[in-house]
Amino acid sequence: MQQVTAAVRRRAAEHRPERGEDMGNDGVAGEFYEYLDHTADVQLHAWGKDLTHAFENIVPCMLNYMTDLSKVDVDPSQTQTFEVEGHDLSSLLFAWLDEFLFRFSSEAFVCKAAKILEFVRPFENANTSSKSTGGAVGELKEGEKQGKYTIKVQAEGETFNLSKHPQGTEVKAITYSAMQIHENEGRADLYVIIDI
Amino acid sequence: MQQVTAAVRRRAAEHRPERGEDMGNDGVAGEFYEYLDHTADVQLHAWGKDLTHAFENIVPCMLNYMTDLSKVDVDPSQTQTFEVEGHDLSSLLFAWLDEFLFRFSSEAFVCKAAKILEFVRPFENANTSSKSTGGAVGELKEGEKQGKYTIKVQAEGETFNLSKHPQGTEVKAITYSAMQIHENEGRADLYVIIDI
Repeated sequence: MQQVTAAVRRRAAEHRPERGEDMGNDGVAGEFYEYLDHTADVQLHAWGKDLTHAFENIVPCMLNYMTDLSKVDVDPSQTQTFEVEGHDLSSLLFAWLDEFLFRFSSEAFVCKAAKILEFVRPFENANTSSKSTGGAVGELKEGEKQGKYTIKVQAEGETFNLSKHPQGTEVKAITYSAMQIHENEGRADLYVIIDI
Repeated sequence: MQQVTAAVRRRAAEHRPERGEDMGNDGVAGEFYEYLDHTADVQLHAWGKDLTHAFENIVPCMLNYMTDLSKVDVDPSQTQTFEVEGHDLSSLLFAWLDEFLFRFSSEAFVCKAAKILEFVRPFENANTSSKSTGGAVGELKEGEKQGKYTIKVQAEGETFNLSKHPQGTEVKAITYSAMQIHENEGRADLYVIIDI
């Protein structure tokens, strides 16, 4: 997309429509038009056998748009472990992708694989918690009592390096636009639109 | 943009996140994600010494995005003369660009230069009609009496030919989004967002 825009801008600069003498040339290099404010978005669709796996897969889905993950290695010394939370599944999904985008933008951390250690859902769904780290059946975790959804993740990858990793497309923001979260028996799907 | 998407789709198809045996491979070629519904738009900005010239210039502005106008010749035998109308300036500008887009899509006509023969504005602005084809001062034209804005244009160019004209970016639609029409002394500006 960057290349198309550059070529088009060149054409805009070089194209001078024929005019009678009453038309003063205006603008840079005599062109009479330009292209502005190009906006774009793309919809990520990731899935898995359950919600946890779908959440794990949407991470490389987004990162593979920003670079080529096949060129990214896992550097064990750079593994990051952190938590993400939300008051419902939508805000959790938003915060989830936003956190990986933030870590890419601020630290140049490219996550190649996200391994979810804990996926905690509030009390009313306590019996569907995945990969809980223990406690008796029915015992509420802190997050569950507070009605928060929490994911604890081990994010594996390495620092972005232009000499090693190709430049993909910049992701400018996660959006809630047309967001979908589907949970079915043996299959979960996520749809998220991101601004590029 | 098409190239970026193709490369990204290839990466999506080739990337298979590591999984334990409990993860059945799902989807085409084992990938767990895909990219959908890519949308994009660009804002055209054209100008001229008055509204008529700005309208003339926004045509190559749009067409130069769809192909490279420097590779397009004017074939006199293919010159098209037609009228476009609207109930106000915004609908006129929309119909104007839409007509050139339609002729490109339906007949593969690439307009390199639009020469406005008449630009008729309704009664309340009768004294600012440009390039009127005659009649006494104050005499109302048919369009003016009816409150319609009408442009009569001589569109010059030739039929699109892939062996001669490079493929640019497809324009899917004209929009009214953030449309601006500015008329000032000695300068007029038009801003139109198009879907690509």
